[in-house]
Amino acid sequence: MNEITPFRLLVPREEAVRIILESVRPIERTETIPIERAVNRVLARDIIASIDVPPFDRAAMDGYAVRAEDTYGASEFNPKVLRLISVLRAGESTDKEVGSGECIRIATGCPIPSGANAVVMAEFAEESNDGHSVLIYKAVHPLENISPRGEDIKRGEIILKEGEILTPAKIGALAALGLRRVPVYQRPRVAVIPTGMEIRELGFELAEGQVYDVNSYTLSSLLTENGAAVTRAPIIPDTHDDLKRALYRFLDHDLIVFSGGSSVGEHDMLADIIREEGTLLFHGVQIKPGKPTLFGVVRGKPVLGMPGYPASCLSNAYVFLVPVVRKMARLPQKKPTIVKAKMAKRFVSSSGREQFLTVRIIDGKAYPAFKKSGDITSLSKADGYIILPVNLDVIEEGEEVAVILFE
Amino acid sequence: MNEITPFRLLVPREEAVRIILESVRPIERTETIPIERAVNRVLARDIIASIDVPPFDRAAMDGYAVRAEDTYGASEFNPKVLRLISVLRAGESTDKEVGSGECIRIATGCPIPSGANAVVMAEFAEESNDGHSVLIYKAVHPLENISPRGEDIKRGEIILKEGEILTPAKIGALAALGLRRVPVYQRPRVAVIPTGMEIRELGFELAEGQVYDVNSYTLSSLLTENGAAVTRAPIIPDTHDDLKRALYRFLDHDLIVFSGGSSVGEHDMLADIIREEGTLLFHGVQIKPGKPTLFGVVRGKPVLGMPGYPASCLSNAYVFLVPVVRKMARLPQKKPTIVKAKMAKRFVSSSGREQFLTVRIIDGKAYPAFKKSGDITSLSKADGYIILPVNLDVIEEGEEVAVILFE
Repeated sequence: MNEITPFRLLVPREEAVRIILESVRPIERTETIPIERAVNRVLARDIIASIDVPPFDRAAMDGYAVRAEDTYGASEFNPKVLRLISVLRAGESTDKEVGSGECIRIATGCPIPSGANAVVMAEFAEESNDGHSVLIYKAVHPLENISPRGEDIKRGEIILKEGEILTPAKIGALAALGLRRVPVYQRPRVAVIPTGMEIRELGFELAEGQVYDVNSYTLSSLLTENGAAVTRAPIIPDTHDDLKRALYRFLDHDLIVFSGGSSVGEHDMLADIIREEGTLLFHGVQIKPGKPTLFGVVRGKPVLGMPGYPASCLSNAYVFLVPVVRKMARLPQKKPTIVKAKMAKRFVSSSGREQFLTVRIIDGKAYPAFKKSGDITSLSKADGYIILPVNLDVIEEGEEVAVILFE
Repeated sequence: MNEITPFRLLVPREEAVRIILESVRPIERTETIPIERAVNRVLARDIIASIDVPPFDRAAMDGYAVRAEDTYGASEFNPKVLRLISVLRAGESTDKEVGSGECIRIATGCPIPSGANAVVMAEFAEESNDGHSVLIYKAVHPLENISPRGEDIKRGEIILKEGEILTPAKIGALAALGLRRVPVYQRPRVAVIPTGMEIRELGFELAEGQVYDVNSYTLSSLLTENGAAVTRAPIIPDTHDDLKRALYRFLDHDLIVFSGGSSVGEHDMLADIIREEGTLLFHGVQIKPGKPTLFGVVRGKPVLGMPGYPASCLSNAYVFLVPVVRKMARLPQKKPTIVKAKMAKRFVSSSGREQFLTVRIIDGKAYPAFKKSGDITSLSKADGYIILPVNLDVIEEGEEVAVILFE
């Protein structure tokens, strides 16, 4: 029989993932971006506080700034009387000093006037009608209701560490220091190269034998969601010369992804090019769908060849591409969300490979959504997938299965 | 005592969320955007397939297009011989017809030539050295290894429904139809208005009594992540006139969020304005931190007043703002990720309100991260939070708690 099948380096899935992950490193390049665009980006260096936050002792409550000792013994039935010498509204401060027997009305957040060392909450005080004096109904101890300078963040303190992902709360910590721009790691630059004579750009009429480019759009969306900066290349005819030219043209990227032709010969071509120009690390993975996936390194750059069939391509992207891009982007690997369901009908696998079976979950039952590896609706109508081990051929109706959800 | 406390409409948290959610509706406005930017957007109408996918009967395997009846009886020991009349590489098609006793070599994805009704896989065939004939080692039945036209998507079929969120797989289904642009619902336009005399724009020097604007940045990040199109307003001094002017200036938005001054008086001011210009639905929620949160409707537009203190503001945003924005954006409400942990030390609450206690999880133990409601580091160093019910005042060391993770 013909030796057309070229899968000489067929590897198990875990081995393939391991090989890819070991071949790439997190991006070292950094950039400084406006804080408005920094959410979910990865901090490129430790942030050391340049100021105290709060930058001054401030009132933690609306009330009256006092000398604590003037309030000792005060109670609801035995109020102390203090002279009101000033009023601080939000955003105001004063040079006046609170002397013995005096107080200043103060809004939350205002700097504590000199002389005062505590704040009596407004609820426990009562101003006279003429506004000249205040009855204090409750004693306060020194520092009560005061947020001391540096209580939140101390100048010189490491407030965020290199490698942290900027959540809204961490964005807040940067803003509290007045930082307008943030040093972050650059996103990995990934080139997605759709290949195939029969592939047509969206929006144009199909000629006989042509189909639309699906893979460059599914891969770009998935990559963008996982922290990559994507260049979607024009469609490349899958000749040896065109593929090789495209490879070198996009070798300035951090990762080159070919979403390949659907036929075996084309995969041989890309494998040959990688072998000639660099190192082919595997060609073919023991999973279904997705046998033709290949991986190698050319001039230090990782090159991934994905199956041409849309459903195979995208499901393999979840398995191989997402982990590698997240590693490069310094994002933590996603923990899959798994739900239990009962198989809605008997399913027989005859692949002899590990199989990803897409399913739709309705009322706790898992219905196979997989049609053929060519079928994008196998994925677009699915909620998740089941992994059938190599040695398992049948799932009985009613059997419990673990469904890994998309997202 | 002074009647400064203005919280006359204090409501429980669930009630507050219900009031807000009932006051807003999903955005009806739509827009048509390039498919490249459509991931995670919400489809604005049913998509009816305008073409069959695949658009023609195609080879599902590399092999030989044959008349099935010519292969009947073929086996490894009794091959049938067919005349090879043509070769179709990927992307090619032919007008040649496969006659009786003939075959055409065909690559996966190529249109099936007329006359042929099945494909023999390359593995089960062998070409003669002169390339004129092929030995067929396995019989195929009609339609075997053929993906018939429309197998994946049938013309006229509803392929995606209005309201679906565009995952990478669904983007793929749109691409398979050749669609370059996608009708989606517009994102809710949310104005975030930082207010306060003491609030300073990032990047400038702080004067005495000033602090940097934290809230507009934390809120904008969180809103953007949850499907909103955010306008970050300049900082507004919190006088009655300025607040009112800002409210009307941004009333062309779908939701107006004031991230308020820290003092009680300022909240009274915004409450008064909403009462004067529209309807104040609540003022104050029975949670800690975040008592001053208020909500109302002015000229049909929802207006939310958030606490001024950064940690209060952001934790209240997770509770109130995220659900309302996701409803407006037509995104499903997030299911919280909850992990169990043991309390690392005794915690005593004395608020008399439901309390959100931020915690950091280290080795399965929950350490309180909350300092004061003014402290952004209460959140930036926390992994999640515990909800302490109104009637619970103490959590003992070692007690199991349910921690709701941020993301």
